[in-house]
Amino acid sequence: MIEKIAQFGKSDSGINREAFSDADDQAREYIIGLMRETGLVVRIDEIGNIIGRLDSDIDCPAVVTGSHLDTVPGGGKYDGVIGILGGLAAIKSLKDRKLTHPLELVIFAAEESSRFAFATMGSKAMAGKANLHAWRKAKDEHQVTFAQVLELRNLNIESIPKAARSKDEIKAFVELHIEQGSSLVSQGVSIGIVDVIAAPTRLKITVEGMANHSGTTPMEDRRDALVSAAMIILSIQEIGLEQSASGTVATVGALKVHPGAMNVIPGLVEMWVDIRGVNHTSVIECLQDIKDAVSTVADGQDTAVSIEMLSSEKPIVMDPMLIDVIESSCRAKGITYMKINSGAGHDAMNISYIAPSGMIFVPSQNGISHHYDEYAAVEDISTGIDVLTETLYQLAK
Amino acid sequence: MIEKIAQFGKSDSGINREAFSDADDQAREYIIGLMRETGLVVRIDEIGNIIGRLDSDIDCPAVVTGSHLDTVPGGGKYDGVIGILGGLAAIKSLKDRKLTHPLELVIFAAEESSRFAFATMGSKAMAGKANLHAWRKAKDEHQVTFAQVLELRNLNIESIPKAARSKDEIKAFVELHIEQGSSLVSQGVSIGIVDVIAAPTRLKITVEGMANHSGTTPMEDRRDALVSAAMIILSIQEIGLEQSASGTVATVGALKVHPGAMNVIPGLVEMWVDIRGVNHTSVIECLQDIKDAVSTVADGQDTAVSIEMLSSEKPIVMDPMLIDVIESSCRAKGITYMKINSGAGHDAMNISYIAPSGMIFVPSQNGISHHYDEYAAVEDISTGIDVLTETLYQLAK
Repeated sequence: MIEKIAQFGKSDSGINREAFSDADDQAREYIIGLMRETGLVVRIDEIGNIIGRLDSDIDCPAVVTGSHLDTVPGGGKYDGVIGILGGLAAIKSLKDRKLTHPLELVIFAAEESSRFAFATMGSKAMAGKANLHAWRKAKDEHQVTFAQVLELRNLNIESIPKAARSKDEIKAFVELHIEQGSSLVSQGVSIGIVDVIAAPTRLKITVEGMANHSGTTPMEDRRDALVSAAMIILSIQEIGLEQSASGTVATVGALKVHPGAMNVIPGLVEMWVDIRGVNHTSVIECLQDIKDAVSTVADGQDTAVSIEMLSSEKPIVMDPMLIDVIESSCRAKGITYMKINSGAGHDAMNISYIAPSGMIFVPSQNGISHHYDEYAAVEDISTGIDVLTETLYQLAK
Repeated sequence: MIEKIAQFGKSDSGINREAFSDADDQAREYIIGLMRETGLVVRIDEIGNIIGRLDSDIDCPAVVTGSHLDTVPGGGKYDGVIGILGGLAAIKSLKDRKLTHPLELVIFAAEESSRFAFATMGSKAMAGKANLHAWRKAKDEHQVTFAQVLELRNLNIESIPKAARSKDEIKAFVELHIEQGSSLVSQGVSIGIVDVIAAPTRLKITVEGMANHSGTTPMEDRRDALVSAAMIILSIQEIGLEQSASGTVATVGALKVHPGAMNVIPGLVEMWVDIRGVNHTSVIECLQDIKDAVSTVADGQDTAVSIEMLSSEKPIVMDPMLIDVIESSCRAKGITYMKINSGAGHDAMNISYIAPSGMIFVPSQNGISHHYDEYAAVEDISTGIDVLTETLYQLAK
């Protein structure tokens, strides 16, 4: 099934299954089919989250699992997907057991930020944290707005607040995911139980120089926005390295040069910065250092620089009670485990605002993710599914 | 007329009249109309150069003037345009004088390299220097090939060699152009007579790192292609500054990041470098220093770097006899002038291979060009037209 889903959006340079793309629609249709085969009653909420419920006649809080199907451009086969297929497998094997709570599988919409620059939109909407004010202006690189892609799928951006669920609808949320780092592999441990999720802080930095002819403008008279941008990139790298002992990382992942012609000195550069950490003080320090470095470059190079804060959230601590349940499940099955922090953001981050939430990590080969070389062994995924199944059972029984 | 032509492709951020765009087609139609009104017999050659001839029944070598209509993205109103309108005005005022040689006005196709990454394509074709092998593969950023845009205009890329003209068709070529630098303004001189044109050397540098998740990959384990690219940009800037006493400049004008998502470490960066100089030794040194710097970064950062040489030409010396004629024209009219080098490439560079060629520069305000703030005063342009008219008369009489 992992291979089957990988066909949706497959290319030579990885999987292009961006949120609300045709490939994403097709993968969603395929999963809805599997959910119905498993006996789930499926509904789509106001932002496009797919919610499949087992034993929907029981009127008490649901035990929920799930993840996402969308990928970054050139992404891998496992990120998100194993949480969906693993959740489905777990529900399948619990189908005939006597349970007090209904089980639910959720496929969250638009988890990756690559298309609209907002991450985990589906779970934010479900947690009542939709930022319509900002989302109304969201558009992809082809100038297609988020509102337009929803409309094409018979969804209305103004109805998104209705996707919010109350605290008494969900008893607990557990997400199975690949680690996307190399701690489990290097320690030889089967399962990671997530302690803290590093929420991303995101900036857009705009450097304004002066476009001019690249052949006739003396080096000394230039205000080259790309030269200033290069200095900022290296400062951010250095600041990230200084903070790395605290687990904080900083990345310039996207950059655009205007006008971007070989014979014109760059007049404007836009770049997008992603900062993550589980230590809030370190993230704040990193942010402050970046602001200082940017000011120094702006003054020294006579290129105006502005910083726009796109998002800034505190690290999220997973629920201690849920961590205990996952831990007991590992012990009951004799599976090795360790507590771990997540550098990546996840839907569990948002759902934790409305329900106790926890995450189960399985090893990623070489720690590679968001790349077509991303890999998790089937045996490791199976171990993860065993732990997920036992955890869901303990919560729902 | 300058304002009228500026309407074709006008936007808030400058003029977008890239080679073979709709705006370029419209501007060409407008100019063809003006040429016919002036009594020129107009033909289009195999690459789309517009050739208008006065007194086409005289069977001896033509005295040719002209320039280009296409712009860089976000370009100005004067680059190219004043050479066409100036040439037209000169021919108009010489129409009723007795001349031995026919006069010609040429609008060269695709002078700017911004669309297909090849500069001065029209004049290269006319000089018999078309590089069909490379041009067959040329495409713009929307993957539209050069061959396709020609075909849409009833031109066939395979017929381009027929656009070549022989040495006995052209007696001399003179191009009127804005300086695109600030020497004339700062020296308070009206006319620049071009001595040497700095031919561009162009490179594409590709940096290969490893795309990975921006939240989960420790700073120490990264092979970030954009960090390496930033180091290369700063090295190129420094090398340019070192060579600037010799008049050599080096610019990274365009850069693309792949996959270019906020939450993915850049795995691949492509960048385009433009090096210009009138001192060939300095250009070669600059090139060698860039190659060395790139190797150092590649090794130090564990990111493979490749350099592709897109073009490399020697500086072109204008014809001494023509320089004398322009000089005498200035003196005859009591106009101040100075010898000057051109940092920018021009069609005159290619035409010099088949005919004695020269260039007349008029002052550019603040030396700004390839930008919507590009400006030349009407009085300065008029002075330039006076010199061009007298020069064409002396050559054609």
